[in-house]
This record gives sequence, C-alpha cells and structure tokens, in this order.
Amino acid sequence: MIKVTVWNEYFHDDPQCDKCDARSIECHPNGLHETVAAIVRELGEDKVSVRTAVQKDPEHGLSQEVLDDTDVLIWWGHMAHDLVSDEIVDRVHQRILKGMGLIALHSAHYSKIFKKINGTTCSLKWRDGAYERIFTINPTHPIAKGIPENFELGVEECYAECFDIAKPDDVIFEGWFDIGEVFRSGCTWTRGYGKIFYFQPGHETNTAYWNPHVRKIIQNAVEWCYNPIARPYMDAPRIKTTLEELRNGSEGEYLRHF
Amino acid sequence: MIKVTVWNEYFHDDPQCDKCDARSIECHPNGLHETVAAIVRELGEDKVSVRTAVQKDPEHGLSQEVLDDTDVLIWWGHMAHDLVSDEIVDRVHQRILKGMGLIALHSAHYSKIFKKINGTTCSLKWRDGAYERIFTINPTHPIAKGIPENFELGVEECYAECFDIAKPDDVIFEGWFDIGEVFRSGCTWTRGYGKIFYFQPGHETNTAYWNPHVRKIIQNAVEWCYNPIARPYMDAPRIKTTLEELRNGSEGEYLRHF
Amino acid sequence: MIKVTVWNEYFHDDPQCDKCDARSIECHPNGLHETVAAIVRELGEDKVSVRTAVQKDPEHGLSQEVLDDTDVLIWWGHMAHDLVSDEIVDRVHQRILKGMGLIALHSAHYSKIFKKINGTTCSLKWRDGAYERIFTINPTHPIAKGIPENFELGVEECYAECFDIAKPDDVIFEGWFDIGEVFRSGCTWTRGYGKIFYFQPGHETNTAYWNPHVRKIIQNAVEWCYNPIARPYMDAPRIKTTLEELRNGSEGEYLRHF
Amino acid sequence: MIKVTVWNEYFHDDPQCDKCDARSIECHPNGLHETVAAIVRELGEDKVSVRTAVQKDPEHGLSQEVLDDTDVLIWWGHMAHDLVSDEIVDRVHQRILKGMGLIALHSAHYSKIFKKINGTTCSLKWRDGAYERIFTINPTHPIAKGIPENFELGVEECYAECFDIAKPDDVIFEGWFDIGEVFRSGCTWTRGYGKIFYFQPGHETNTAYWNPHVRKIIQNAVEWCYNPIARPYMDAPRIKTTLEELRNGSEGEYLRHF
Repeated sequence: MIKVTVWNEYFHDDPQCDKCDARSIECHPNGLHETVAAIVRELGEDKVSVRTAVQKDPEHGLSQEVLDDTDVLIWWGHMAHDLVSDEIVDRVHQRILKGMGLIALHSAHYSKIFKKINGTTCSLKWRDGAYERIFTINPTHPIAKGIPENFELGVEECYAECFDIAKPDDVIFEGWFDIGEVFRSGCTWTRGYGKIFYFQPGHETNTAYWNPHVRKIIQNAVEWCYNPIARPYMDAPRIKTTLEELRNGSEGEYLRHF
Repeated sequence: MIKVTVWNEYFHDDPQCDKCDARSIECHPNGLHETVAAIVRELGEDKVSVRTAVQKDPEHGLSQEVLDDTDVLIWWGHMAHDLVSDEIVDRVHQRILKGMGLIALHSAHYSKIFKKINGTTCSLKWRDGAYERIFTINPTHPIAKGIPENFELGVEECYAECFDIAKPDDVIFEGWFDIGEVFRSGCTWTRGYGKIFYFQPGHETNTAYWNPHVRKIIQNAVEWCYNPIARPYMDAPRIKTTLEELRNGSEGEYLRHF
Repeated sequence: MIKVTVWNEYFHDDPQCDKCDARSIECHPNGLHETVAAIVRELGEDKVSVRTAVQKDPEHGLSQEVLDDTDVLIWWGHMAHDLVSDEIVDRVHQRILKGMGLIALHSAHYSKIFKKINGTTCSLKWRDGAYERIFTINPTHPIAKGIPENFELGVEECYAECFDIAKPDDVIFEGWFDIGEVFRSGCTWTRGYGKIFYFQPGHETNTAYWNPHVRKIIQNAVEWCYNPIARPYMDAPRIKTTLEELRNGSEGEYLRHF
Repeated sequence: MIKVTVWNEYFHDDPQCDKCDARSIECHPNGLHETVAAIVRELGEDKVSVRTAVQKDPEHGLSQEVLDDTDVLIWWGHMAHDLVSDEIVDRVHQRILKGMGLIALHSAHYSKIFKKINGTTCSLKWRDGAYERIFTINPTHPIAKGIPENFELGVEECYAECFDIAKPDDVIFEGWFDIGEVFRSGCTWTRGYGKIFYFQPGHETNTAYWNPHVRKIIQNAVEWCYNPIARPYMDAPRIKTTLEELRNGSEGEYLRHF
C-alpha cells in the first residue's frame, strides 16, 4: 500500500483566494490537488491511499506526522513558492533523504524543495502557449511503462531549454513545442533514499491531467518513487570494529540508523 | 590565468585559536591554506594567481568582490562548519552557479556549501587512521592526467562508504583502506556553470598534501574546474520572438543574461 | 512469471570434460548452472521458471526458440569464451536488444556477449585469492533490496581495477580485497530494451554462491533485469505522417515494430 | 598538434561513382571529406594536421600505420556501411580503445564502428527534410564552448527519436524539427581511452557544414576527443606483488601496458 500526499498551492484554483482565476477553477472545481489525487486513486484502493494538503493549511498540511506517514509526495505550486515556510521545506527535504519519494509537477520546478534537491536555480524559459508533443526517449524505464514512443499532448504552456537542473539520473521524456522549443519534460534523480521525478505538463488552465498518457505517467511515477527500503541513518559514525572481529562474525557498527 | 582562492577554516592549525593542536601546526606552519596554495602555485605564475582566505576574516574573506574575482575556490573545513554564515554560503553558491569552480577537500564533505550542492546529508563513516591506496578508475578524465592507475597514499584518516552524495557525474578515484573500507575518493559534479570536484585525502595531521600524486590531482582539478564560459542569466524569462522572426535572422530574447 | 535460462560453460565442473578439476566438481556436483538455478528457483514456482543450458549442447543450448522464450539469461564462462559461436552470440545480442535481460557472473566479464554489450576490452587485473568484503554504495537501487550496507564475502578470487567497461548506468556494489585491491563489483547497463547486470563474485572453486547476500543479489537481479515491455522495432523507418494528420488523431507510423 | 583523419564513404559525392548525385557533388566538389577537413584546418597549422581517407582506398585508407598516427578520426558514411571491411572496423575499434577519438557525423550512426561502440542497433526514425533548430542543453561542456544556447540550422534531413544508443555520458545538443520531431543531436561516450562524439547534422545535400556554429562544434569536438594520455595495456594480467612490497616502494606490476 503506497501512501500518497498530493500537495497543491491552491491559489489559482481556490475560489476563496483573491488571486484565483475562473479558468483554473473551471478546470479544477475541487482544486488541482483533487484532480491529481483522482489520477493516483485510479491505481486502486488496495494499492494506494491518498490524502491532500494545501499551502494555507496549518504547517502547509505537512506536519512531521503526515510526512512520516507519506511514501510519495506530489507537489504543485506556481505563484507563491516564497511563501512556503523554510522550516517545512527542511522537514520535507529530510523526509525525502530518508525514503519519501517526490513528484514535482510543472511549475513546481521553482519550488523551494525542488531547488534544494537540485542545488541549482532550476530556471528555464517559457512562452504563453503552444502545441506540445511528448517523446519517450527512455522506453525501458519503469515510468515509461505503457507509454507510446510519442503522443500528442495538445495545448500546453511552453517550457524551453536551457533547464538549469542537476544532471538527471535519467531523462525519460522530451517535449516538442510547435512554437520552436524543446524541453527535458520527464527527469529522475535520487537523493539519499528518496527518488524524485519531475514532469513538465500541467499548467493550471490546461487539460494535461485529462490526457490518458499523462495520467499513466503520473501513476507509473507513484509506483517508481515509492521506496520501501527503510534503512537506519547515523550522522558520520566512527567505526571501531576491527577486521578480525568482522571476520569472526561481528556485525559491528555497520548499521546506518535513522 | 586562473584565479584561485584557497579557503581554510584555520582552527586546528592556527596557534592563536584555542582549538588548535600541535600536530596540525607542525604539518602546516603557515596554515593548511598556505600548504594548498603552494600546491596550486606550482602550476606557474603565468597560469595561476592564488589568494587565501580563512573563516575568521571579515565575511570569511569571501566578499562579493573576492568571489567575483575567483575562478576556482578550494575549501577545507572540519570542526566549525556550522559557524560559517548562511549568507556567505548563499553568495558562494550563486557564484558557483555562475561559473566558479569548487574543489572540496577531505572534511569539507560536511561543509554547508558542499551539502547545498549535493542536496543530501553528505554523511559517511570514518575511522581514526588506516593505510590508504588510491585507484584511478576513470583514467580518461582530465583530472587523472599523469596519475598512475594506483598509488600508495600511506597513513590517512579512513573515510568509509556509504557516502551519501548526489550521483556524481564521474567517479575518478577510489580509495582502499587496509582496515577494511572503500570510498569514492574523487568525484565530480556540475551545477549550472560551476564544476565541482571532491577529493577525500587531507586530514590536518597527515602528510597527504606532500604526496606528489595528490599534488598533481589538485593541480589537474584546478584546471578542470576552471570554466571561462561566461554566459548571461535571466530568471525564467518569457520569450516573445516568433518562429518567423527567428527564421528571418532575429536573435530575439534567446540570450540568457547575468 | 519470469523465464530464466542459466547458461554455464561447464568445462571446470563437468566430470566428462578433460579440463575439469576436482575442486570445481566438489563445489558444483551438478554443474555451476544447477547451483545458480537453485538460487533463482528460491524465488518460487509462481514467480520464476528456470532452465539450464551448457556450451557443449547443440547451438550451446540457445536456439532462437529458447532465446525467444527467455526473459533473463544468466551467463557464466571462464576458459572457453572463444569457443562460443559468433552466430549464437549475435543471436543473444539481438534478443537482449529486444528485451531479454542479461546477468553476467564473475569471469563472464570476458565473454563475447559481455564485450559486445560494452564495446570495450572488459579487461581487469586479478590475483589468485583474497578475503573480500562487499559494500552497497547505491542502497536505493532495487538490486540492493534487503542487502546490508556491507557484508563479508570471505575467500574469493581477487578482481582488481582498472576494469575496462563502458560507463555503467549505476555502480551498486564495490568490492574490497584485503590484499590491497578494489573493484566495481556490481554494475548495470541498458542496451535497447535489455537490462544488464554484472556481478563479480563466483569463482568456480569458491563458495560465494552459498553466501545468503550473494543469493539475494542474484534473485533481485533476476527481478530487475526482467523487462516485460514488448515494443515493436523497425529498421530506421521513414515517417510520412504530417503534423496535421497527427493533430487530427492519426497514430501514423509512430509505432516501432518488432 | 592533433593529428586528424577525416574518413568519408565518398559514394554520393564522387563523380566517378555510379551512385553519385549532382546535388552532393555541387555541395562537396572535392568530396565531403575535404569539406570537413577544411573545417578542422581552421584550427590552425600549429594546432592540427589533417589527412583524408575514403572507402575505395586500399584498406579504406586506414592501415595500422595511419591509425597509429591518428589522434582523432572523423567518420561520415551513408549507403555503403556494409561494404566496410570487418577487419578494418576491428582495427579502428582497437585503436579507439587505446586512445584515438572518434567523431561520428550524421548518417554515421549506422556505421559498423559506431554500432560496435554502442552495442545497440543505433536505429532512429527519419523524414525527408525539415527546418531544424539546435539547442545547447549542456552549456558547461567543452564541446559547447562559444556555441549559443540555441541557433537556427535551417533545412536538414530530420532524424527522430527514439534513437537506440547506449546511454550517453552527456547529451550536449538537442535538435528541434518544425515537422514535429526531437532528437539527441550531440552526444558523448567514452570507451577505454577513446572519447566519442556523435553529431546529427550533415546530410550530403544540405549546407549544415557551412553553418558557423556547426563548424565551431566540430572544431571543439576535435579538441575534446583528443586524448594524449598514452597508457599501457595488458590483457588481464595476474598481479603477484604483495602489499608489503608495495609499502616498501615497489611499483610492482601495476602498470597497464600497450
């Protein structure tokens, strides 16, 4: 059972927020978090259990308890990254290093947590809108399971290279925009025991989340980002076991404890 | 001409510091920074110009002016990483993303800047002392130029896996310790335009910096980490040039400006 | 159900072979292929079905039929790599590119198929025997599931760097030998749809295959190397579908057919 | 002084060949090899010395003597890959492993040597013609020196993903085609001591080789592929030096000799 938390900024799509807009609310009547949660729930009740959280919640809905009870965190944010508390970001970061997966969607490239993971600016170029096609350039990767070699995404906000990220472990999807741009649309990294996937589609006023391939990619990513290996962790422990003791069967201090 | 700044914590090896110890001062009578600076200066006056800085200096000796005038920063710290100002660390980080190289030596694995670059804990295990041999497992890499396939380092503080780092772009050197440990002793990463090299030898009371191969590795690293490509940078600029305009020769907004 | 074929040279351990030796037969009374097959079968009848093949069989036991019916091929060879038919090697290579996994054990580093996969000499250095410890340096990788951060292997033939392989996608295990050597003991690659894992332990006269961690690693590798995605393949097809046709829903020639 | 050999199939562009066509001869009046050789010679007489070779020459112009005297080999072929002798290909392969660089241009993706390096089919999809733009997605790489973040290439034969290659060490350039395709247009690998660069532009009837950025990329690649480190090589040598002997200063058998 994979426990997923879908985190959404919930400014554009919150009728109660003074920054909201009609088109976003129209696309996501219950909030973008519910749109994405519905995608994950399609994996089945026996496979996943999904909760949601939004930025305006106390502690942004990410108490230590919630994070400890989350296997995979999905993050969508856009206009208010700077209002996310540094303390909560550190908490999320530590939880990732200890095995929680992270799926960063679209404008989450500029979220504090994604920038912390990469150690770069995570900047890119962008255009208002374009017609996008997505290519699977790493068809052997588990996240590419059941995804065609390419598919039409349709209208999407255009993200353009150069995408200032740390070198991905893998680039799985490449985006083509009719307006003349390309973009590394699906990338993975590992940090500690955390597995991270960035996926570019998903502007709040577009219909990417209703594309069947996009839905499948997010579902595959939930399964891939899930890392059930719970290993202990110690802060630079000093080892005193001798080689003789090891040869004689002592496990010594070779456990890394959380 | 590569402009190098050698930064040293200067606690162990500073006779004026109440945390100093005799053995460190004996190894580095003018400070570890001068030991390393001497290594770099061997590249020649026409090739490098070297300055040093220590933690107790105002702004840790790393004003914006100094950083803008530095091509490669070498960092050694051990017992006082937490006393390095977050503001200075951010300044160093931004400078790296804009093209300053970073060489992190030995215990600098736990420095704030190295952890920021990796986005991980950078933890490891360690032992008091061991006999170390170093293997060149990537002999084609420029940092391995003139380095034998393996060499005896001698007595060194033993660092042991698992080293919690981001996946290196390349692992160039692997360390073997007679006491039963291995370690990825030489690794590279790229962040933005910055090139980073971590090198494990160099405990303040050991003689690693007098090993001819260690000296050559540090010199090769200075040359490799130097990235003279100065490209402009813009914070997620919106592009408005049309494809037609581009085909007709307009350069448009495709420059990334610092 | 993963269909595994365990391929063994079966010279050292075949009492009928004039190159056999008593110690190998003692270790592997039914042949090394049965030793390894037993490891795989522990995954369970519902999970795997295992067959074996040896070099002296017609077509080395690897007819097109057998290969098409194999999901993961495990390869052990040592003294007679050159006697493996080039035609069979090409057949195995093509099958790998179409999705069959390959696990190359120990001296299989010098097999024709492993060298074809890497495009390098796959050379290394070696010593008669040493005491080995194995370190898990990539604990997040599926092949590392359930494997401690390090474990004692005991006596094993010592393989030493520099191992002339193509850059692995991942290095999962690192070997330490008391006699002064290190080695990248567990590495992965992907070629086409084939997933490849090389694992260093397993000299024919040693007891590596009875080490519980070694057994678990081989079992994890069988599961990881299994790639059920069957995608078609075409030899550099020319595409004629226009962008308009694609936007209007045509799938066009965008399927890659086997 | 980098010694470069430019190898060309010389069928399309050879007036004496019955497979030639007028447009290719018009683009390359002295053969495509002279077109490319001219690009390399722009680096300067003191920096490079360039020779050419064509498929119809004895031994395809690649005797052991010529190869031993070549630092970087540039390869262009298209319609007659299968007519290149396997023996010569092996010779080229061995020379690459010992330190000769390889630049594979355009349709050389299907050359025997490029497929040997990758261990894959090197297949792709293609279209007759399109308008191409090239993006620099790894601006820190030496091959990207002086290349803008993107540039207009103009009309070029369209190569399309999925490009069945081994995972590149680096992807430096990404191609965008107006007709709806993307392609990893500039990739690097290392095999042994050989450094390999694949660059997609360069159909025999197009003007890519007159684009100033394409010229600069090829020149950068010649400099990057040049690997002057000549190290010896031994075929899996057995080591007999003991740790004691090593500690006492013996270099032992730790040299890898060619």
